[in-house]
Amino acid sequence: MDLYTAKIEISTSQQKELVDITQKVREHVQRSKVSEGICSLYAQGATAALMIQENDDPNIRADVLECFDKLVPSGVWRHDRIDHNGAAHIQAGLIGPSETIPIRGGELALSTWQNVFLCDFDGPRPVRRVMVTIMGERASVGA
Amino acid sequence: MDLYTAKIEISTSQQKELVDITQKVREHVQRSKVSEGICSLYAQGATAALMIQENDDPNIRADVLECFDKLVPSGVWRHDRIDHNGAAHIQAGLIGPSETIPIRGGELALSTWQNVFLCDFDGPRPVRRVMVTIMGERASVGA
Amino acid sequence: MDLYTAKIEISTSQQKELVDITQKVREHVQRSKVSEGICSLYAQGATAALMIQENDDPNIRADVLECFDKLVPSGVWRHDRIDHNGAAHIQAGLIGPSETIPIRGGELALSTWQNVFLCDFDGPRPVRRVMVTIMGERASVGA
Repeated sequence: MDLYTAKIEISTSQQKELVDITQKVREHVQRSKVSEGICSLYAQGATAALMIQENDDPNIRADVLECFDKLVPSGVWRHDRIDHNGAAHIQAGLIGPSETIPIRGGELALSTWQNVFLCDFDGPRPVRRVMVTIMGERASVGA
Repeated sequence: MDLYTAKIEISTSQQKELVDITQKVREHVQRSKVSEGICSLYAQGATAALMIQENDDPNIRADVLECFDKLVPSGVWRHDRIDHNGAAHIQAGLIGPSETIPIRGGELALSTWQNVFLCDFDGPRPVRRVMVTIMGERASVGA
Repeated sequence: MDLYTAKIEISTSQQKELVDITQKVREHVQRSKVSEGICSLYAQGATAALMIQENDDPNIRADVLECFDKLVPSGVWRHDRIDHNGAAHIQAGLIGPSETIPIRGGELALSTWQNVFLCDFDGPRPVRRVMVTIMGERASVGA
């Protein structure tokens, strides 16, 4: 069984934003040479999260953020008296920072419309980090 | 360390439905012969998700779906102008497609009332797929 | 690749409570001697879940619970006629029982403000269990 680790670093430009990191994740899967296994992703930051979502229609990202702001409105939390990002913390906790995606035939086994998004609920930030841990088996030579 | 991969395919019959796939997952854990490790599950489809939930009282499934339709109502999203399933996308993103369940003593380490459900938020579909990746160690002979 | 398994058992004292288990998880990472890999955590119990959240300001925990009780109010579900914890089941399903956290340099790769919380939505309970599965590589001797 092989192990490959990496870190994806991106900057965000909006106060709340879903950033598609699928291509960066795919590059690490290729570099790992793992053919069958898992790609475990983890977003650092207690106001960030990872969501698997469609990226074909950019409206979905706006819909997700609008929905989250309705479910968890800003400015009404105890934590806002200390640091004005209570809603961002709750939203991030609701989505969660970890997703584990299968690898098959050397590729991320996402379906056609699934992409990996970093959710920044308290941006913009110069650096948001996603840790990549790939575990599995390489294809046999000649296989 | 051993690796076992499989795919669970099911059809759904309702527009929104939670389908208990626990027994199918258990069968793969048995076939894998892994005694200690993890069973990583991943639902393909950007309007599907996985939820661990009680299955003893079927009302809970109805409660979950009713709650989700209140939190994320259908028909009010930008994406609905393109494809009438904006709510299904947001609901799936909120739950997420991946769950990683421990294996102990050759069995899925679910507690008594925990079962694994595929959530189809945009059905019915002839095929929904859940990828199964099992990693761990087999029991020693004679152990 | 090494495998280490353990079980964290805690008691809860409130009806709804977020209990910080980060230190207990860190102890298992140290004992495992795994330097690079993953720590997969799983909360047993269909009314429990795991959330990564800030622990510096205890108000955030109160905010999370208040928000969840607004989103999923108690006493209005079909399941409440059988067992008065319908909201607890839905809340637990929404958060989910599994989180997979990377290990780097022999440490949990949480960011500064991220901590691991067991969410008990139907307490108090004498025992809540979190299964720990650590997989990865130990540092080479002399490395």
